[in-house]
Amino acid sequence: MPGPPIALLTDFGLDDWYVGVMKGVILTVNPEARIVDVTHGIPRHDVLAASFALLVSYPYLPRGTIFIVVVDPGVGTARRILCTRTAGRYFIAPDNGILTGLVSRVSPDKMVSVENQEYFLRPLSSTFHGRDIFAPVAARLSQGVSIDEFGPRIREFHKVEVPGPAVETASATATVVWVDSFGNLITNCRGGVVEDLAGRWGRVVVQAGSQPPFPVVAGYETVEPGLPLGIIGSSGYLEISIREASAEMRFGLGLGAEVHLLPG
Amino acid sequence: MPGPPIALLTDFGLDDWYVGVMKGVILTVNPEARIVDVTHGIPRHDVLAASFALLVSYPYLPRGTIFIVVVDPGVGTARRILCTRTAGRYFIAPDNGILTGLVSRVSPDKMVSVENQEYFLRPLSSTFHGRDIFAPVAARLSQGVSIDEFGPRIREFHKVEVPGPAVETASATATVVWVDSFGNLITNCRGGVVEDLAGRWGRVVVQAGSQPPFPVVAGYETVEPGLPLGIIGSSGYLEISIREASAEMRFGLGLGAEVHLLPG
Amino acid sequence: MPGPPIALLTDFGLDDWYVGVMKGVILTVNPEARIVDVTHGIPRHDVLAASFALLVSYPYLPRGTIFIVVVDPGVGTARRILCTRTAGRYFIAPDNGILTGLVSRVSPDKMVSVENQEYFLRPLSSTFHGRDIFAPVAARLSQGVSIDEFGPRIREFHKVEVPGPAVETASATATVVWVDSFGNLITNCRGGVVEDLAGRWGRVVVQAGSQPPFPVVAGYETVEPGLPLGIIGSSGYLEISIREASAEMRFGLGLGAEVHLLPG
Repeated sequence: MPGPPIALLTDFGLDDWYVGVMKGVILTVNPEARIVDVTHGIPRHDVLAASFALLVSYPYLPRGTIFIVVVDPGVGTARRILCTRTAGRYFIAPDNGILTGLVSRVSPDKMVSVENQEYFLRPLSSTFHGRDIFAPVAARLSQGVSIDEFGPRIREFHKVEVPGPAVETASATATVVWVDSFGNLITNCRGGVVEDLAGRWGRVVVQAGSQPPFPVVAGYETVEPGLPLGIIGSSGYLEISIREASAEMRFGLGLGAEVHLLPG
Repeated sequence: MPGPPIALLTDFGLDDWYVGVMKGVILTVNPEARIVDVTHGIPRHDVLAASFALLVSYPYLPRGTIFIVVVDPGVGTARRILCTRTAGRYFIAPDNGILTGLVSRVSPDKMVSVENQEYFLRPLSSTFHGRDIFAPVAARLSQGVSIDEFGPRIREFHKVEVPGPAVETASATATVVWVDSFGNLITNCRGGVVEDLAGRWGRVVVQAGSQPPFPVVAGYETVEPGLPLGIIGSSGYLEISIREASAEMRFGLGLGAEVHLLPG
Repeated sequence: MPGPPIALLTDFGLDDWYVGVMKGVILTVNPEARIVDVTHGIPRHDVLAASFALLVSYPYLPRGTIFIVVVDPGVGTARRILCTRTAGRYFIAPDNGILTGLVSRVSPDKMVSVENQEYFLRPLSSTFHGRDIFAPVAARLSQGVSIDEFGPRIREFHKVEVPGPAVETASATATVVWVDSFGNLITNCRGGVVEDLAGRWGRVVVQAGSQPPFPVVAGYETVEPGLPLGIIGSSGYLEISIREASAEMRFGLGLGAEVHLLPG
């Protein structure tokens, strides 16, 4: 039975050696580690986008997985590094709000501030804690070192405001929080909210940009290729899509854009 | 002795968490699975390009490999999902013609329509069968579950017309089916066809765009850096290249472009 | 205890099947091989950039690691393929100068010219030695085959001139040798050189483009977000950065650009 996987989620991209050397450090500490890339394509320094990506991806990694989450514009400042056990998994992340979404849904069993330099790489750089702290700490965790070894227990940590959809009587406004490679616009509006509105209004339509409203449907096959639709996507949130084309291109909308839900 | 590798070939790109969660699902089902990325860079929704990429890559993966092939513009429609054993390997793919090239070369030992929901993730999304069906089915196959467990045996499946080169008496026309990262233009013209023409014509030259014809050579060293050439590339097909530069940029040609072979 | 990792460093990108089939070949030869991507994002055909990337990344991969380094504009010409054991690791690379940086720092225990066709794939292509030679040779090395099996011992190999910083009495000029995904401009000026200059001048400032000079600092937190800085980066070289933004964009500088160090 192999040990728990170590899952990486960063904004490093794959063009540099940064992800490669993190893997090298992990394998130096634990030659049997198994490493999975969740993504390295988080928009640079975008803590909110990373928080969302983590929230919708973590449940699909096995229980026991150790997540390294590095979107860390404050590297080299006094910000702390958190290690928490929650939802049956471990998460190592900078204390910059990136865990807000996760912890709002599942409260942590335990959280420590990673401070025990015994587990850090030497010399410690001021610009690449992913390599020098996150990677060796994750590798040690994967070998069974107790979370309490890494630093003192803490209860308070940094949170960011994660905007939810704004629901009014006769309309609701959702915000685009991720644009995927297919050009789908993923919003912050959970499927349950759309269902509630449908119960109240009978039928929900979406208005995006200056285009005429279009329906929220149950599957792509409901509309012809090339037509727009709203759909509760695979992550459980309302997405704006064009069947077999890019909603990003068609609507000219991106991260942070607002779309409107109206009675249909 | 580890189990068979699971090889992924998709048009998902690597910027989202989609490939990561497929891997997570595989490892949740089979913690010992070994996963290999063939590529996630298939042009979006391009079934023909995916079919070509599969055809030229699969022989280099070990016998026993389980391929997950997801270029699936019809996800969420009634299209079937195929699982076939052929060429000593397994292939799981949407029934949209993506296996046409492969099956034209090696006929399948066995093919089933993947329908047994017992092996699917719950809840089943309508937009991400890669995560909810392909991944867990591949993981089960890698654990030794019989292909017959996944659904009924079928014989007929969807094929697409894969255009071959058009060979005339005094000319031939090939079509670009892949443009690689170096800017090489890979055509649908197999090396054997070029050899036949060389036998008949004595010498074969290529005309691409409005440029003067250039020779088909055996190796890059035959021409100076910066000059164009035709060559039977590493995939066994005629490629149009510029030595140490990009033919895509030089000729302004891309997917679907035609090039001409002439007696030299 | 698993065998040594095989680490890949190429200019292939990830959009084609090239990296995938190299992994397939490795796993066909050695089903237990563990493969790590260092990066496939080396600028195409840029031997100097690859040499730098290798130099700053290799120490973070475990001792025993077998590196496949393929930036090989001369593939298909008579250039040799080198296999060397140095710094406790193995390196397989074209004889085009790519090992210059590495070998200037740690002299090789042993070097052979890879010529024993018994270990090559058949048929051998003239355009993809990564798949047909580098991959199977690395896989055999990982199984314990002796380096001497692959070809004759050699002492001389191709080197390229790796430009260092030009240090004068009252100024120094450094060259950008890597631009990372965050837009940091990494120069060829090692931290020790900057320290020497600081000892001599008291304080060192950097001039990049036509902007006013800015300081060399110990950590990002020293300057406000949006301001420029010089810093000894995680690779041990002087980098030009903008805190939480892209120096590449701000200065309009790229690979090969020069920046100046002056008394501050």
